[in-house]
Amino acid sequence: MNKAKNAPKVVIIGGGFGGLQAAQELGNKPVEVALIDRKNHHTFQPLLYQVATAVLSPGEIASPIRRILHKYKNIEVILGEAIGFDLQKQTIKLLQCAAGPNELSYDYLIVAAGARHSYFGHDEWEEDAPGLKTIEDAVEIRRRVLLAFELAEREAYLTGVRKPLNFVVIGGGPTGVEMAGAIAGIARQALAKDFKEIDTTKARVMLFEGSDRVLGTFAEELSEKAKKQLEDLGVEVFLNSFVTDVEENRVKVGEDWVDCNVAVWATGVAASPLGKTLDAETDRAGRVFVQPDLSLPNYKNVFVIGDMASLKMENGQPVPGVAPAAQQMAQTACANILRDLRREPRKNFKYADKGSMATIGRNRAIAEIGNWKFSGYFAWLMWLFVHVISLIGFRNRLSVLTEWMWAYFTRERSARLIVGDAEAMSDSRQLLEAKAATQIPTLESQKNVVKTA
Amino acid sequence: MNKAKNAPKVVIIGGGFGGLQAAQELGNKPVEVALIDRKNHHTFQPLLYQVATAVLSPGEIASPIRRILHKYKNIEVILGEAIGFDLQKQTIKLLQCAAGPNELSYDYLIVAAGARHSYFGHDEWEEDAPGLKTIEDAVEIRRRVLLAFELAEREAYLTGVRKPLNFVVIGGGPTGVEMAGAIAGIARQALAKDFKEIDTTKARVMLFEGSDRVLGTFAEELSEKAKKQLEDLGVEVFLNSFVTDVEENRVKVGEDWVDCNVAVWATGVAASPLGKTLDAETDRAGRVFVQPDLSLPNYKNVFVIGDMASLKMENGQPVPGVAPAAQQMAQTACANILRDLRREPRKNFKYADKGSMATIGRNRAIAEIGNWKFSGYFAWLMWLFVHVISLIGFRNRLSVLTEWMWAYFTRERSARLIVGDAEAMSDSRQLLEAKAATQIPTLESQKNVVKTA
Repeated sequence: MNKAKNAPKVVIIGGGFGGLQAAQELGNKPVEVALIDRKNHHTFQPLLYQVATAVLSPGEIASPIRRILHKYKNIEVILGEAIGFDLQKQTIKLLQCAAGPNELSYDYLIVAAGARHSYFGHDEWEEDAPGLKTIEDAVEIRRRVLLAFELAEREAYLTGVRKPLNFVVIGGGPTGVEMAGAIAGIARQALAKDFKEIDTTKARVMLFEGSDRVLGTFAEELSEKAKKQLEDLGVEVFLNSFVTDVEENRVKVGEDWVDCNVAVWATGVAASPLGKTLDAETDRAGRVFVQPDLSLPNYKNVFVIGDMASLKMENGQPVPGVAPAAQQMAQTACANILRDLRREPRKNFKYADKGSMATIGRNRAIAEIGNWKFSGYFAWLMWLFVHVISLIGFRNRLSVLTEWMWAYFTRERSARLIVGDAEAMSDSRQLLEAKAATQIPTLESQKNVVKTA
Repeated sequence: MNKAKNAPKVVIIGGGFGGLQAAQELGNKPVEVALIDRKNHHTFQPLLYQVATAVLSPGEIASPIRRILHKYKNIEVILGEAIGFDLQKQTIKLLQCAAGPNELSYDYLIVAAGARHSYFGHDEWEEDAPGLKTIEDAVEIRRRVLLAFELAEREAYLTGVRKPLNFVVIGGGPTGVEMAGAIAGIARQALAKDFKEIDTTKARVMLFEGSDRVLGTFAEELSEKAKKQLEDLGVEVFLNSFVTDVEENRVKVGEDWVDCNVAVWATGVAASPLGKTLDAETDRAGRVFVQPDLSLPNYKNVFVIGDMASLKMENGQPVPGVAPAAQQMAQTACANILRDLRREPRKNFKYADKGSMATIGRNRAIAEIGNWKFSGYFAWLMWLFVHVISLIGFRNRLSVLTEWMWAYFTRERSARLIVGDAEAMSDSRQLLEAKAATQIPTLESQKNVVKTA
């Protein structure tokens, strides 16, 4: 129906913060829009760690993209995965999923397919130390964390043996700090009264950071405070500690192996592999070098935004890979498309830094807004306020507030589901134990020193 | 710690309605209790269909068993799967899941491992027509239902072809009726405004029932009313319609194949296979014939309760496989254990029928309490009231009420997540289409006529 119109067709790849913002910018404008995403839902990534640690349910931080955009008559949402482009013919190839054509043409293309964690050439580590980028990741990490406590309780009951419980978080950026603080919160408070054989408060939570401070993008004094707050929560913070290898149930830090029940990967950035198909140069992380107007050097009608774009600010620093930057890029890219249509000159992207914040745990956070620096309870309230109002969709906000109030006052976690059969669990556990017994680190893997900054 | 006590040890297998009730009956009594379940959570099965149809999130109808029972000092909860018994030695074998012993001894055993749907010897049908017994089932059915709409929209957008969308529910018992009504509600109301290429209100929902009425355990006039209410919602109800074969994207009804995008299985009962390991006779559905005191004929210290037990009421009818019956059996079995300890004679189980109800959709339900019969809005309010107060745990009740109020007033569904990669989705879709093109029903499968009552 929309296709009957003669309006220029803008295709947006990705329904993250950048892609969604782009769609909203173009809503009810004189263009025909199609947004393509692999999932049917937009994920509010800043709160993924709360799903991974059983505070929120997946449904509470995800909204159907179709629902968010349903009020715009000129926007179509398509479930699918872009796997390549013909930039000359202006077509997108989708992963085959039904009979018939799987190509889509465009007049303008906005690529906003985001990034995942980078394992620095060791993608095989992902199985043993998953990252946290999707709902599926979060549910898997939640499963592993809760299962570790369950299996320890079971073993203690059946055999009387109480083995140490170790959780390892690799990387001291915002995700790593949030995860470490939240796991400590689970062990110290949420689960403490529910286990009878084991003492969950004795579980160790270790955070390994390759550089000399956590939250390295913040001011030094805030890094210091964040470290202190983590330690108050019971997290052991190891700085200048590079993780050099990962195996089932252990990670190698420098030259030493550290046993762990669960490892979480929270470092490194690898842009979507789509970046390499765009006939443009990319940086080491696979981000595409874009023009100041966010288009590709050779294709004025193709824009790359968000975590996939590499661009320097006026001060020479790269634009950070955060949600506000992606949203601002979406605004600029869409403004430039609409300027083209009005035959006005394009404008260049300018990042407006509205400050940044990171939460560490119950009542604890840090925030940096211009030259203002906050930490502790007040920073936490700010964090809470910003995240509640940012959550897309009124309903999610309401429900998240209820959950948070419940978790805050009772110190309980309500979303403590291990999804998946005990059978599958025990199979993988068997496999894991058999493997741990026979696996010898290869020379190859020992040689690779990876920075966890 | 508990093991140091010299109290008799009661092991409960299963954390469903029966097992959980048994644990609560024995809480703070002079026994040592271990409850074993494959999952870490108790699932409120009567509301599973609301997860399958995107009203509620999994976390809202499931509570960690450990949390429900944490106040009882004499109860230990163990994640594990019982795979067999040595009734002479009084030991339980658990599925191997960690190094060391996997046996558990008992003085008393309460087996409450429940039932699943029966595919009448055609377990291969489960893949194409999943049943609805666990959280995982519900999430999978939700995925299929939402995906069917997404793929139809995608195909219509890419090719302009609008193929019919058919949903099939097999079996007209409470689960089948709830599912059919809820899918019709999704198509007619919740999704209608969000899709631009397809008209979701034109999706067909077909319910096939082998007998001559739906909800056959209710009075005839209520069956009639339920059928009418289903039809008002847009469900096509086919009575005396046996499903005789199931393949990907089609089911055979009598001699005719009916195409469908999603099929849901909601008929038949197959008790847990553990029943056959208990050295006692079982009925056709695998239920164990128990003594009037609910113990096994040859083992006075072993009780079987809930959907696994086969027992006749005074009127010669079997005790129905419903939650209240399982809970009442738990009370009798536990009372008999405690009577043994006090050297009092055991009492026999007597089922107190408190009435039954089934919901059909928004504002629609039927209820039968003794000779009283209700249908329509009032019955629906009764259903709502009973289910809200039955939901275990204050927090879940509160959150479910919020979700229901939201869904009721906005006619929206908030838990519309398709979890799983688009990649996996398209792979299975490809497979499915390739299969549908080449698959020819075998003589074998055509010969088997299965009653869907």
